[in-house]
Amino acid sequence: MDVGGSKMLGIVLDPDGTIVAEQRVSTPATPAEVVGALTSVYRRLAGDARLAVGVGAPGTVDRGGVLHRAPNLPAADGLALAELLGAELGVDVVVDNDATCAAVGEASYGTARGVGEVLLVTMGTGIGGAVIAGGDPQRGANGFAGEIGHMVIDPGGPPCVCGGRGCWERFASGQGLRELAQREAAQGRLGTVLASVGGDATAIRAEDVTAAAASGEAESLSVLAEFARFTALGVWNLVLVLDPELVVLGGGIGVAWPALADAVSARLETLAAPWAGGRPAPPVVTAALGACSGAVGAAVLARRGDTCASP
Amino acid sequence: MDVGGSKMLGIVLDPDGTIVAEQRVSTPATPAEVVGALTSVYRRLAGDARLAVGVGAPGTVDRGGVLHRAPNLPAADGLALAELLGAELGVDVVVDNDATCAAVGEASYGTARGVGEVLLVTMGTGIGGAVIAGGDPQRGANGFAGEIGHMVIDPGGPPCVCGGRGCWERFASGQGLRELAQREAAQGRLGTVLASVGGDATAIRAEDVTAAAASGEAESLSVLAEFARFTALGVWNLVLVLDPELVVLGGGIGVAWPALADAVSARLETLAAPWAGGRPAPPVVTAALGACSGAVGAAVLARRGDTCASP
Repeated sequence: MDVGGSKMLGIVLDPDGTIVAEQRVSTPATPAEVVGALTSVYRRLAGDARLAVGVGAPGTVDRGGVLHRAPNLPAADGLALAELLGAELGVDVVVDNDATCAAVGEASYGTARGVGEVLLVTMGTGIGGAVIAGGDPQRGANGFAGEIGHMVIDPGGPPCVCGGRGCWERFASGQGLRELAQREAAQGRLGTVLASVGGDATAIRAEDVTAAAASGEAESLSVLAEFARFTALGVWNLVLVLDPELVVLGGGIGVAWPALADAVSARLETLAAPWAGGRPAPPVVTAALGACSGAVGAAVLARRGDTCASP
Repeated sequence: MDVGGSKMLGIVLDPDGTIVAEQRVSTPATPAEVVGALTSVYRRLAGDARLAVGVGAPGTVDRGGVLHRAPNLPAADGLALAELLGAELGVDVVVDNDATCAAVGEASYGTARGVGEVLLVTMGTGIGGAVIAGGDPQRGANGFAGEIGHMVIDPGGPPCVCGGRGCWERFASGQGLRELAQREAAQGRLGTVLASVGGDATAIRAEDVTAAAASGEAESLSVLAEFARFTALGVWNLVLVLDPELVVLGGGIGVAWPALADAVSARLETLAAPWAGGRPAPPVVTAALGACSGAVGAAVLARRGDTCASP
C-alpha cells in the first residue's frame, strides 16, 4: 500500500511482480482513520487470504515503522503505523519511506532492474528521494536517509515548511512549478494557461502547465525548461555525492510531462562536460511503474520481511 | 601513502594500527616525478621488506586506480597510478580517493571506530568527502562518489574551477576562508590579522585567521563563526541525504581550529530543531588521526587488498 497526502493505493502483487488487484481511496484526516482505511483496503483486496503487508508512507519513517515529520500527512506525525496496522490485521506489516519503496519497486520490476547504484527522485507536491547502493536501499543511521528535497540550493531563497530557506523542493517540486507558473502569469506570460483557469494567476496548478506543455504550447514549454534547470541543479548535487549509475524520476510531474527526464539529462551533460572523464553524467529516465512504484516496492519489502516488521 | 597538492606523506602501519615509520616529501610537478618520488619514499620506508602499498590521491580515482580530475594535481590527470607504481615496485598497489582513505583510516583506528554510518568531510584547499554506510566505504558506480565540495549551494555564487557556480567549496574550504577574510579586511575589519601580514589584505591566508582565532582574537573568531555557518549548510544538506550517525571533519582547517566541529554541531542543532524527532543532528567531531588519516586508511585498504589492485 502507498499512502499519499491526498490518496492511498493498495495493490496485490503476485510472485512474478504482476499487479493482480488494486484499490484507491482518499487519504482521511486523522491517524485513526488512516489505520481504519488501510484496514478496509486490505480486507477488500485480501478477502479470506492472509497476506504480508508493506506500506510506503510520506516523510521520515524510523526503523520501528513509526512515522515522523510527514508534512503532507501532519495528523500522522508520531504514528506507530507498523505496530497499529499489524495488530489490526494480525499479519506482518512493514512500513518504509514512500520514496524508498518506489526505488525498491523500480529496482525489482521497473526501469532500474539489475542496476546496482540508483538515485530515485519522486517529484510530487514536494520532493522525496531514495538511494540504492550495491543493490540495497540505503536508509542511514535512523532510517531517515533520502530527504533530498530539503537540501538548501539557495540560502537566500524562500522559506520552506521544514524551517529552512531555499530548499530544493521550493523550486523543483509540484509546489515549485506552480509558484514559478503563477509568477510568470502575473508578469504577463503564460497567457494560454492563464486563460484556461479563467484569468486568475493564483488558480494555476502544476497540472495546468504540464497539460499545456503536452499539447506543445510554447510558453509552458519554456516554463518547464526553466523548471528542468532547477531539477537538474539538485540532481547534479546528488550525482556528485553518490555517483549513481542511473537516475529515475518518479512522482506526478515525471509522469505528466515525460520529457522532463530528457531535459534534465541534457542539463546534466552540460554540467558534467568540464569534468571530462572524471564525472560522467548518468542517464535520467522516468519511473516505469508510474504511480504504482511505491506500492509495488512496499509489497516487495513485505515479501522479503525486510526493514521494520511489526512486533 | 597520501599524495597532496603540495606534499606527500608515506607511513608504515603495523598490524595493530601503529605508525612505525614515516616520510614526508614535496609533491613534484610531473606525473613521472610523482611516481618516482613515491618509489623512493617506499624504498626508504620498506628497506628490504616487500610491503603492500595503498595510495590516497586527490580528485576522482576510478576503480582501475587511474586518476581523473585532480584539480590540485593537474599534471596527474589521467595517470594510471596503480599500474605504474605497481610495475615499479613489484608489489600490489591500491589507489583510492584521499577522502575515502581518510574515512577508512578514521573508521579503523580513529574517531569513527565501530560506527556504521559516517560522513567524512576533509577541509583543505578544497573540500573532499567520503561516506561509510553499513561499515563500508561507498564508491558509487564509477568510484567517484563523495565529490561533495562541488554541490551547488548558491546558483548565483562565484565561479568555481569545476565549471559550476556557487559550489560549497567556494565558501567552506581553505580557499573560501581566505577569500572571506580578505573581503572582511578590505572592508576595514580583521585589523589584527591584517597587521600580521604587513597590511596587505590580499596576503591574508586561511592559516592567519585560524592562528589569530586560536589566540582568542575577536574579529577572527567572528569570521570563523561565519565560516562555520557556511560549513554547516553543506553538512546539513548531506545529513538530509545520507542520515549519518557521525560527521568527522578532517583536513587542515579542522586541525588548525578544532572549535570548528563544535560550531558546526551547534548550527546543525538549530537546523534540525524544526524536524523534532524526525531528523536528529548527528555529532560532529574532528578527525582523530589528523594529517595522517588518509595515509593510515590507504594502508588499511592495501592490507585488505581492497578496491583497485594493480595487475
